[in-house]
Amino acid sequence: MTVTDLAPDLTRILDGRWGEVRQRLRTEGDPLRYAPPPKPLSMEEHRAYTKRQLLALTSEPFAPDGLTRGMGGTGNFGASVTAFEMLGHGDLSLLVKAGVQFGLFGGAVANLGTGRHHTAYLPGMLDGTLLGCFAMTETGHGSDVQHLETTATHDPTSDEIVIHSPTPGAQKNYIGNAARDGRMAAVFAQLVTADGESHGVHCVLVPIRDEGGQPMPGVTIGDCGAKGGLPGVDNGTLEFDSVRVPRWNLLNRYGDIAADGTYTSPIDNSSRRFFTMLGTLVRGRVSVAGGAGAATRSALTLATRYALHRRQFSSPGGEEELTILSYRAHQRKLLPAIAKSYALLLAQNDLVEMMHEVADFEGNAPEERQRELEARAAGLKAIGTRHATDTIQMCREACGGAGYMAANRLTALKADTDVFTTFEGDNTVLLQLVAKGLLTEFQETFEDNSPLAMIAFASRFTASSILEKTPAAGLLAKLRSRAPSTDDDESERNRGRQLSLFLDRERHLLEGVALRLSKAAKAEPADAFRVFNNAQDHMLTAAEAHIERVLLEGMCAAVEACEEGPVQELLDDVTDLFALSTIERHRGWYLEHGRLTPTGSKAVIRSVGVLCKDLAPHARTLVDAFAIPDAWLGAPGLLEPLPDTFPES
Amino acid sequence: MTVTDLAPDLTRILDGRWGEVRQRLRTEGDPLRYAPPPKPLSMEEHRAYTKRQLLALTSEPFAPDGLTRGMGGTGNFGASVTAFEMLGHGDLSLLVKAGVQFGLFGGAVANLGTGRHHTAYLPGMLDGTLLGCFAMTETGHGSDVQHLETTATHDPTSDEIVIHSPTPGAQKNYIGNAARDGRMAAVFAQLVTADGESHGVHCVLVPIRDEGGQPMPGVTIGDCGAKGGLPGVDNGTLEFDSVRVPRWNLLNRYGDIAADGTYTSPIDNSSRRFFTMLGTLVRGRVSVAGGAGAATRSALTLATRYALHRRQFSSPGGEEELTILSYRAHQRKLLPAIAKSYALLLAQNDLVEMMHEVADFEGNAPEERQRELEARAAGLKAIGTRHATDTIQMCREACGGAGYMAANRLTALKADTDVFTTFEGDNTVLLQLVAKGLLTEFQETFEDNSPLAMIAFASRFTASSILEKTPAAGLLAKLRSRAPSTDDDESERNRGRQLSLFLDRERHLLEGVALRLSKAAKAEPADAFRVFNNAQDHMLTAAEAHIERVLLEGMCAAVEACEEGPVQELLDDVTDLFALSTIERHRGWYLEHGRLTPTGSKAVIRSVGVLCKDLAPHARTLVDAFAIPDAWLGAPGLLEPLPDTFPES
Repeated sequence: MTVTDLAPDLTRILDGRWGEVRQRLRTEGDPLRYAPPPKPLSMEEHRAYTKRQLLALTSEPFAPDGLTRGMGGTGNFGASVTAFEMLGHGDLSLLVKAGVQFGLFGGAVANLGTGRHHTAYLPGMLDGTLLGCFAMTETGHGSDVQHLETTATHDPTSDEIVIHSPTPGAQKNYIGNAARDGRMAAVFAQLVTADGESHGVHCVLVPIRDEGGQPMPGVTIGDCGAKGGLPGVDNGTLEFDSVRVPRWNLLNRYGDIAADGTYTSPIDNSSRRFFTMLGTLVRGRVSVAGGAGAATRSALTLATRYALHRRQFSSPGGEEELTILSYRAHQRKLLPAIAKSYALLLAQNDLVEMMHEVADFEGNAPEERQRELEARAAGLKAIGTRHATDTIQMCREACGGAGYMAANRLTALKADTDVFTTFEGDNTVLLQLVAKGLLTEFQETFEDNSPLAMIAFASRFTASSILEKTPAAGLLAKLRSRAPSTDDDESERNRGRQLSLFLDRERHLLEGVALRLSKAAKAEPADAFRVFNNAQDHMLTAAEAHIERVLLEGMCAAVEACEEGPVQELLDDVTDLFALSTIERHRGWYLEHGRLTPTGSKAVIRSVGVLCKDLAPHARTLVDAFAIPDAWLGAPGLLEPLPDTFPES
Repeated sequence: MTVTDLAPDLTRILDGRWGEVRQRLRTEGDPLRYAPPPKPLSMEEHRAYTKRQLLALTSEPFAPDGLTRGMGGTGNFGASVTAFEMLGHGDLSLLVKAGVQFGLFGGAVANLGTGRHHTAYLPGMLDGTLLGCFAMTETGHGSDVQHLETTATHDPTSDEIVIHSPTPGAQKNYIGNAARDGRMAAVFAQLVTADGESHGVHCVLVPIRDEGGQPMPGVTIGDCGAKGGLPGVDNGTLEFDSVRVPRWNLLNRYGDIAADGTYTSPIDNSSRRFFTMLGTLVRGRVSVAGGAGAATRSALTLATRYALHRRQFSSPGGEEELTILSYRAHQRKLLPAIAKSYALLLAQNDLVEMMHEVADFEGNAPEERQRELEARAAGLKAIGTRHATDTIQMCREACGGAGYMAANRLTALKADTDVFTTFEGDNTVLLQLVAKGLLTEFQETFEDNSPLAMIAFASRFTASSILEKTPAAGLLAKLRSRAPSTDDDESERNRGRQLSLFLDRERHLLEGVALRLSKAAKAEPADAFRVFNNAQDHMLTAAEAHIERVLLEGMCAAVEACEEGPVQELLDDVTDLFALSTIERHRGWYLEHGRLTPTGSKAVIRSVGVLCKDLAPHARTLVDAFAIPDAWLGAPGLLEPLPDTFPES
């Protein structure tokens, strides 16, 4: 048996609950239907190419899988998001354009609208006859969506809603599908009734182009033009000059206006209402995290395959040149990144299950579960897209000049995923939200990210209650009961010790943030921002520590679920590498807080080196387990070694 | 007096010895002559645009400044490299294409050739009538140049040299100017005499296109096509099928063949000869380090200007939204990167002076000075290009969606400089060379990067001798004599303590590497690689520590050279921020090795936070001191805030 034979078993573990969806996409249909164009295209050609790919996608089940049966779908939400993730192995322009159409535009209509909107627009959304935009971000406001400037004012005389961009900053910006293809936009705006009262941000459907593709009267459409990547996505700007739409176009699930102009909502508090509406759009972040993961695994597969045949410099005493993966520095670049990708994929599978179950409640999930889902999605999106950007960059460099050739795909993977760190929620902002969620035990609305909201609650916090409910705490107890105290307890390979180090760090950081913020809560307003600011780094670090603990838990659970044998042993080593390379990265903190001795810290570094050395012979197995068909990977210049001789011609 | 008034004084410090060159380029001529195309072009259009820019450059003095008087230049080497650095504020395609033409092709002819080549080809190189390539890298060998496969075999019957690519791996690859414009290539190949003896890698001038632009017989030219960036550079491949050139075309300064086929060289040892030849090409690395620095400073200026007008979220208790630079997390992204850019620019100026003085010897500089220059150039290229890639990426993210728009330039700066980390010497390889240079006190040939060469010498090493000669050691003694022991000695703002921490780390790491490698030197060959591999990380870390110490020395010298007053105070704070953010990054090491206590380490983190807060109000001054004209920066979407109202139309 060769080591490669372990890959299929690993694939089954990594594929998760919707593995069948993954397997079907790998084996059925034209393998190149999601692929980037075979040769570089101009931006306009690429847009047309991506649109054709999008329309072809409408014959696949993944958009209907994302809707409830009542809306004409199948309610197979997890399958839908898993299929979307698999698009991340193809051209990311298609992934993003599909995300805009089916996820964002479709999601707004489905989750914020009611029956009349579903009936009128979901069929066209699904079959591609109605291409739509999600017009939330403005030039002046991205992260702080609550303060969008666009207004939607009800005019009872005509019973219309007037959409207006009052300032240059109110221009909708970076809107996917706007520059070329979109016919309708889900426009987020401050809803104002005739009495002049503002009811906060709501979403209104606004036709932006007529049947002939011309902008509707009062709508000015701009083209964002070339971007750092995603050339097939037609991002644009939208400005509204008192554009009138029927009142009927208000997506009225969480807030409605009657014919007489009175406003009603099932949620009294306007801020809470707004954040509830945003919360229903959580699937976008789940999907971005998934797509980023897929792209990262493509890059790691390419760089690892290359490192296994690329040779440079002879071994001392030998004539044969060494593969570049023989070198410790190269092992240390690739293997910890592979280990983290394993952890992220397992966590993504868990996240998709959480999302599936919450979606099954059709909007009536218990609030705490909804908020936990939002926090988990925000955290994994932030950590996963950071990992994508860093890892794909590393992979490009690990392939040298060959990595810089567009034909070898790494540069497009990098350029296309680059914006993932700042769209669908800026990562810094998302990590703050995660920290806030943890501090409030998900009792507060999730999205409110103002410094004020951050500090308003912290004095009530105790870390112990929330952390003692985590799987890690249970797993820790189990591991301890199974292996009673031995000398080995202090070994860096001891799983219980690793979990303790992760949990302890998270708890300590959270308590520290709570302590700092509770001072801010008691301070004068002028001083409150200063205190918040001094705590901001700690919040971000605490959120990262939280997600890292979640990742390690998922890895541990996967190892536990494995039968004893070589697959379990390999996964166990990968888990060790993820745990120890994470501890190594934070060893400054562990040393500062007396959780590692200097000797223990050096032992961690040494163990990471040993694990990299020991796992290097399994590197091909580990990336083969990602099960990305060679046809999807492209990049023949990286996948296969050069022939030794010229072909006979 | 406003804080901004300090910028011109800072500029004078940062501009260095060839400040006049910088100032002239900023103020004279069409400010857009180095600029990227005003709108996105196709690759072919961009190549034509860049070629036109290159030809226009021939009327400026910087190429002649790079040649000695004897070669028809001015011998103003420092001015030449400084002017090249300034191209880094323009379109980096032009920088790279100019680097290929004047630096690499021109440098090979000038430094490896003799009078006959100078007379025949330098005028055309200078005026652009002879566009050339530097054909060193092969598909199969990039880092390990000594093992290139292309052969150059002397045929005494016709007195010609036969250039041949024996395998697919021998194909010359990624060669700038090859795909479209180059008429001649400086081809690096194994020189073989008729007796079958190989004399190692030499360089031969090979015409690759005729006057009509068609490939010469036997020369196959390929096009690398689209790359991750640098669209204006026509990279290509070259394959030679027994292509014959006159013996005259051998660049024969370091190795010659007589008409009778006998080989002679002023350097007997063939390996030493090869590394001496490579050493003469050091200016390429100096230039890449410079260009990377300029691009990084452009990015930092854009992101800082944006952060000073972009507002998001209200202050607690206030209605006005806060600038994003008000947030500690944002300050912590930008300000340490600015501080490191200061350090790198000052070190670059020193490097250019070293290069200028070594070049003044016209190839006869004392060997130790030549090697120190090579090591410094390799180290600053590695650390500077790493800083460029990381910092430009961070700047892109710090500008959110606006940062992703091609019109705002950050994405092109990132994509174009990306390859700098792996071309002109892969950074990992370069850092190994730096470590080796330090270990051998520059008594060994510099470029030999095989594991064998790395371990062959280490047992002879003592770190103390070399480190006690450094400016830091002298500066340390001076600082100590000036400020006799006070309580403040332990403060993290104490410059002597900072220098001690840097020096001590470098010494300890170098001694550790020497110890590890000396074990390898004594080991069996089979085991030697294992020992080398276990030490590889330490080598890379030691090299980084060395360069960081050099950077801090340069900062300290600049502060010392300043008059007392607000400029000195500001530069002193920037120096503290560079020193402390570096110590913070390595605090794991300092704690492991008992150089910082946990309390001391936390104090370092806190000090970095305080410095970021204190320097944030000076951020505009600090980037204004880079003195990059707004016209060069482009990106109006980042430089200026949005107007509050639509213009009257």
